[in-house]
Parts: sequence; C-alpha cells; structure tokens
Amino acid sequence: MSSKGLLIVFSGPSGAGKDTVLKSLMEREPGVRLSVSATTRGPREGEQDGRDYYFISRERFDQLVAEDKMLEHAEYCGNCYGTPSEPIEAWTQEGCDVILEIEVQGGAQIKKKRPDCVSIFILPPSLEVLEHRLRRRGTDSEEAIQKRLAAAKGEIAQALQYDYVIVNDDLEPAVEQMAEILRSEKQKSIRNKDFIERML
Amino acid sequence: MSSKGLLIVFSGPSGAGKDTVLKSLMEREPGVRLSVSATTRGPREGEQDGRDYYFISRERFDQLVAEDKMLEHAEYCGNCYGTPSEPIEAWTQEGCDVILEIEVQGGAQIKKKRPDCVSIFILPPSLEVLEHRLRRRGTDSEEAIQKRLAAAKGEIAQALQYDYVIVNDDLEPAVEQMAEILRSEKQKSIRNKDFIERML
Repeated sequence: MSSKGLLIVFSGPSGAGKDTVLKSLMEREPGVRLSVSATTRGPREGEQDGRDYYFISRERFDQLVAEDKMLEHAEYCGNCYGTPSEPIEAWTQEGCDVILEIEVQGGAQIKKKRPDCVSIFILPPSLEVLEHRLRRRGTDSEEAIQKRLAAAKGEIAQALQYDYVIVNDDLEPAVEQMAEILRSEKQKSIRNKDFIERML
Repeated sequence: MSSKGLLIVFSGPSGAGKDTVLKSLMEREPGVRLSVSATTRGPREGEQDGRDYYFISRERFDQLVAEDKMLEHAEYCGNCYGTPSEPIEAWTQEGCDVILEIEVQGGAQIKKKRPDCVSIFILPPSLEVLEHRLRRRGTDSEEAIQKRLAAAKGEIAQALQYDYVIVNDDLEPAVEQMAEILRSEKQKSIRNKDFIERML
C-alpha cells in the first residue's frame, strides 16, 4: 500500500487550539512532522535554523521563488516568509506526513500548487466558546479580542474550501479524528495506484 | 456536526472477504445497515420480505424505475434486481450509514446518480492469496476457480474508480480501516456545511 507521506494543510482561527492539537498529535504519531518556513528576517534569541525557520538571504529567497521552489510565500513588515517545497518533498518521500500550519490565504495557494494535499480546518465548538477562550488567555485587550473575533469569522467562512473540518471541543477526540483522517487518506485508491497495478 | 448517514458502495472480487468484513463491521457499529435489494423473482424457502429482498411485482419494479426510484437495476436470468432509493433515503436521514454491497457495474451506476456516496473497494493482499482462498473453500471446480480469478482481475482493474481501497489481509485491521473511513468521511467540510453556516 501507499508508502509516501501526505502533505497536510492545517488552518483555523486563533483560539481554535491548532498548536495544542498538533503537539498532542505529534506525541502519538512519530511519523508526523511540521513543515519549517523560510524567512529573510534574522533569527531572534533562541531560534534555531532548520527548526524554527530556515533563515535565508533575500537573494536566495527570490531565487527559490523564481525556480518555483516555494509552495507559497508572502511579505510581512518588510520580511519575506515562505514554504520551501524541497524539504517537504524529501520528508514525504521518506514516508513522513508533513503538516503545514498556515493561514487561509497561504492554504489556498498550496491547494492550487499541490491538489494532492489534504486540507483540514479546525473549528471551535461555537463563536461563544472561541470568545471565552480568547478572554481566558488574558493576553489581549478588549479591542484585540474583538479584532480576533472578526478575523475568526472571516476565516471560518473559508472552512468549506478545506477537505475536512474538525471541531476542537475536547482535545483527545479532536486529535483522534485528525489521526483517523490521515490514516483514511492513505486508503484513497488514487494513492495506491502502484499497488493495484502491481497486483495485476 | 453532520448527522445524516452515509451511502456506501462496497465492492470487491469473490474471495476478498466482503461478507466477513461487513459482518464484523456491523457487529461493532450499530449505526451501520445493509441496503436491501428489490427483485421480481419469488422468495425462496427461508427468505423474508424486507430482510433478504423486497419481493415486488414486475409492474411495481418498472414503475419504480420509471419514477427514478431505483439507484441501479439489472436483469438476470429473466428476473429484475435493483436498489430502491427510498429506504436508503429514510435510513440515512435517521443518521444510519447504509452499505450497498454490489458488483462494479452497479457501483458505477450509483456513483453517477449519487456522487455524494462513498465507494470502497476491498482487495486481497495478492492474486496468489485470492487463488488460495478460492481453493480452500473447496466448493468450486478448477474451471470455476479459473473463471473467478479472471473475473477478479477485471474487477480489480476497476478499483481505481472507487474512492478508497482496503486490503483484507487480516480481518481486524481491515474492519478498523473501514470504520475509520466512515468516521473521517463525516468530517468532510461539504457534509458539515449547515454546521459551519449556523456558526456564522
């Protein structure tokens, strides 16, 4: 059966619990890796090249874009950020599933370039729960919370563009659903063409 | 989240273990039901109307076809067989997943009429294992076995038309994969449109 890993686009509004789900998933599934972005900004204290980001020059960044070796890219506050395709290709060839945590615009760019990717959108149980979670963090001003909520609505409106949605009500069922989606995707006939053809 | 049940088209060559997988799946998943075919032939001893088949007149059968209330139908040895859509609609509305065990031509007819169905093809681990299983049954002549093997190759060549393939090497993992596919399909965003829209 299919031995190549999956490319997974993973999005959801702030407060939906993306990081918690990913952390828990990676603890139980050793074959899952997180994609590392490339950036032209300098490393901050404690950041490690190849783990937090690939820190590269603007020249190198532009070259990767020109050679179509970025799955998506964007400029933010004068720095460039992007997803280099080569490490993802190497990992999926090894059989690892690679997860790309990304906002919805970047997710759409990737879906276009890699229609074989699996896209998953994580939802809060309701907007009320999302608001409650954002307040509980205690890090944002009222204005910031209202901004995040408005942004969340815009993002959730894009959820139908994704293949799957997961509601993060309780952590464990959400992580289990994600693991099941990855396993089921590997049973897709299109991913097992070689196996079927070898059998005949 | 999605409360409507799935319509599942389930096919595979003789000897792949379709019945064993379904029996085991239904023992562990009470929300799964098997679709019942309609036929114009008379009931045989022990057969029960509504359990083994819906036994109906030729007139009624033709009427259901004319009213587009058969998902697929075929004539075999002078009798008509078909899949009435109304019981399936009622069960999926109740939230049950309905499995249709059917050969590949019938499966293709259903996929056309109900593109929202989930199609699963069950494969043996290899043609050698399939041959061994057919021989072990001890019910077929050498000629019948060769015929079944030739038919199996033709059927397996259609596996790529199905959404998923499951290799039935060991029963338990095969049943688990099938249960996971059904659960994952319910996480598809398209099946949760109402939930997402209600949230906004």
